[in-house]
Amino acid sequence: MGRIICAGLGPGDPELMSLKADRVIREARHLAYFRKSGLPGKARRMVEDRLRQDVIEYAMEYPVTTELPLHSADYNRVLAEFYDDWAARLAPLAEAHEVVVLCEGDPFLYGSFMHLHERLRERAEVEVIPGIPSMVGCWNVLDTPFTWGDDVLTVVMGTLPEDEMVRHMLATDALVVMKTGRNLPAIRRALARTGKLDQAWLVIRGTMPDQEISRLQDYEAETCPYFASVLVHGQGRRPQAEPVSGAPSAQSGRQASRSETRT
Amino acid sequence: MGRIICAGLGPGDPELMSLKADRVIREARHLAYFRKSGLPGKARRMVEDRLRQDVIEYAMEYPVTTELPLHSADYNRVLAEFYDDWAARLAPLAEAHEVVVLCEGDPFLYGSFMHLHERLRERAEVEVIPGIPSMVGCWNVLDTPFTWGDDVLTVVMGTLPEDEMVRHMLATDALVVMKTGRNLPAIRRALARTGKLDQAWLVIRGTMPDQEISRLQDYEAETCPYFASVLVHGQGRRPQAEPVSGAPSAQSGRQASRSETRT
Repeated sequence: MGRIICAGLGPGDPELMSLKADRVIREARHLAYFRKSGLPGKARRMVEDRLRQDVIEYAMEYPVTTELPLHSADYNRVLAEFYDDWAARLAPLAEAHEVVVLCEGDPFLYGSFMHLHERLRERAEVEVIPGIPSMVGCWNVLDTPFTWGDDVLTVVMGTLPEDEMVRHMLATDALVVMKTGRNLPAIRRALARTGKLDQAWLVIRGTMPDQEISRLQDYEAETCPYFASVLVHGQGRRPQAEPVSGAPSAQSGRQASRSETRT
Repeated sequence: MGRIICAGLGPGDPELMSLKADRVIREARHLAYFRKSGLPGKARRMVEDRLRQDVIEYAMEYPVTTELPLHSADYNRVLAEFYDDWAARLAPLAEAHEVVVLCEGDPFLYGSFMHLHERLRERAEVEVIPGIPSMVGCWNVLDTPFTWGDDVLTVVMGTLPEDEMVRHMLATDALVVMKTGRNLPAIRRALARTGKLDQAWLVIRGTMPDQEISRLQDYEAETCPYFASVLVHGQGRRPQAEPVSGAPSAQSGRQASRSETRT
């Protein structure tokens, strides 16, 4: 009996995929992945060196990217039909075969695969292998702990209205903003209104060979790639520790060392 | 020249560690890990079958667990001295050797390693390998997409005051509560006050062989293990899609299928 296995690929560096994802990808006879029309596809590139000779590939090419306004009914209808079509193709295949579907990051965290998952779960056996989310890769390359103690962590999309972003930014300690791209000016304004702009980092293609890291206030372009993330570290909502003689407290040590190494 | 490499192990299932973490653990001559005094240690157990014959192990045994009140000055002083001591032992070792330090989940997301990181970063070369966070493992075993579209995701600690938890629960779409344990009654009350108790799941030891999954309102014990997580799924803050003929919209399909499979 067949099934669908969605393999989370992690943030970009192929060595950051899990042992389990690596194993099912190496064994795959049927391999499906999303990509922009006409491009090789990032997910496909990440598995380049580990495919069987006789693998059968299913490139699921998005029918629209930026031709239609993001929140329009047309955009949603066209995408829904796209997912319907692919679910209708993969479901019968999964009756007899194991079909591996690639997904960057973690499949259940804002992943495209979820739209197939909803359409397939009543029609086929579906297994999902988690991956290191993109945001975890981004805070890893900043090389500084991201959340401490009782810190609150909030993840917001840059597609939200600016005032709503401001409310979430004010309420949280550590912050991740995803879906940046053309929303970068509004994200900047929201961070400035909350006094957090000078603590914000922009990470583009984190963990990939061509990654870019900059303080957001030093980043000069108006926009950035859609899949870049903005991050603000938690400042350690921890109980006051008495300083230990000869060693600074962890919190003050952290803040001092961050400003030394980052500026 | 040596260095410290902290390897994120992921949520529990050893096959969910990254290829990179697996590689450095298999190569390790010097291996350090935290554990409760007198126990083998969860991190150590996860790497059981992949260690070199000649590995030298450094079991870093926590000096306190529950003997002192969590937020007391004594607790913080004793822990700070513990981290100071181990940093003082590992730093000279890392001058000549590669020392691998194990860390469950992702090291920079509320990880114990961060306290060593702060003390070591000025004294040794330190590299951190990210891991799949525990919370990602937990929502993976619930087998349902966790965040959709423009959903806001908030991660709060069960150690926060109840009223503060309530404010964050009201403001977010998807929710993770970590550090549950003895805080479970307050977490329950906060969820009930925000009308989210009936949507909450409790995942104990997610992705491990002895994992437990239950709806929080069906979980009868007053408390749970400290490292269990409470999760509330995002409900899909997405623009209204026009229903496609013959197929329900992804959102209504999702909600229908969740209630069918979960109740």
